[in-house]
Amino acid sequence: MSRGGRTGRRPGGADTRGEVLAAARRRFAHDGYEGSTVRGIAADAGVDPALVQHYFGSKRDLFKAAAAFPVDADALLPAVIAAETPTARAEALARMFFRVWEDETTRLQLLSVLRSAMTHEDAAALLRAFVATELLGPVAEALGVDQPALRTSLAAAQMVGLAMLRYVVQLEPLASASTETLVAHVVPVLELHLFGA
Amino acid sequence: MSRGGRTGRRPGGADTRGEVLAAARRRFAHDGYEGSTVRGIAADAGVDPALVQHYFGSKRDLFKAAAAFPVDADALLPAVIAAETPTARAEALARMFFRVWEDETTRLQLLSVLRSAMTHEDAAALLRAFVATELLGPVAEALGVDQPALRTSLAAAQMVGLAMLRYVVQLEPLASASTETLVAHVVPVLELHLFGA
Repeated sequence: MSRGGRTGRRPGGADTRGEVLAAARRRFAHDGYEGSTVRGIAADAGVDPALVQHYFGSKRDLFKAAAAFPVDADALLPAVIAAETPTARAEALARMFFRVWEDETTRLQLLSVLRSAMTHEDAAALLRAFVATELLGPVAEALGVDQPALRTSLAAAQMVGLAMLRYVVQLEPLASASTETLVAHVVPVLELHLFGA
Repeated sequence: MSRGGRTGRRPGGADTRGEVLAAARRRFAHDGYEGSTVRGIAADAGVDPALVQHYFGSKRDLFKAAAAFPVDADALLPAVIAAETPTARAEALARMFFRVWEDETTRLQLLSVLRSAMTHEDAAALLRAFVATELLGPVAEALGVDQPALRTSLAAAQMVGLAMLRYVVQLEPLASASTETLVAHVVPVLELHLFGA
């Protein structure tokens, strides 16, 4: 009898939620978002799939909870995608980035996610799946250019590196530059990455 | 009597070299390269300055040993600075970057440096001082443009982020793209950062 068949053995307790999350992190890390199922995760955690749904809602909601990514892309990306010119889209991306990173609470959470990814392969795999599916995928899809995934991830590399040097290494003059100065410098670069020369 | 005055108490032993390195890391992290002296570091370690010189050579040699940065900038930067056109310089930088990061030994050492910087403020301070003094300073000085330090560090941000996403998070398609593809995409961006539109 599979572990998933032990329906009712765990009607939900103090750490059942945590065990489902841990199972979800392992599955999403190893099999990716598309390759994982709520049923498989429930089986790994030894609970009924209905309990997983009760705790977390849809598979996508469970994925977002497992990734613990402190930014709600659903709330932020539409403004970027809706911007009409390449320059406006690049600027919307840059401003979204700084709005997120200049907030100390979010920044500390993002750094914690990055630190985990640098030290644990499972965390890196989970972050990779999340970033591709939830952050870069929707942007790439809306670009209407060749090589959208490569372009989007190169633009992301610019911003991830800027975050590392400004907020972690605190390299000057990046660390104390105003966000307006940085926006002015990165918008043409994001535009070049995303839309070409 | 200061600790630095205890000449002869430590003529050099199994861990004397390590203690000098530890003292150097603290000093360079707290006071920066310009603000640190071999005399002060020797005093912190309780040894004679001559012993520090005997072990490590000049202050700059000690700094490089303390930072434990696995890349010899002195060997790599002249080729970048000597390149004559903006495009050639950007391309030399990009190729130098991939030569360093595609080598597994160097990559693991660089990742170790980055991990330390993400978890220890002293390591971040040391990396900051090293990157500014040894890597970006010489490039910025040779640029002959306005805002050289800002431009150089924004270009560095592009490459640091690319390293994070390609080698740590292993985000696709960055992780499996050929270095030629990546060079083709980042050269115009580095040129834009370093020399303007």
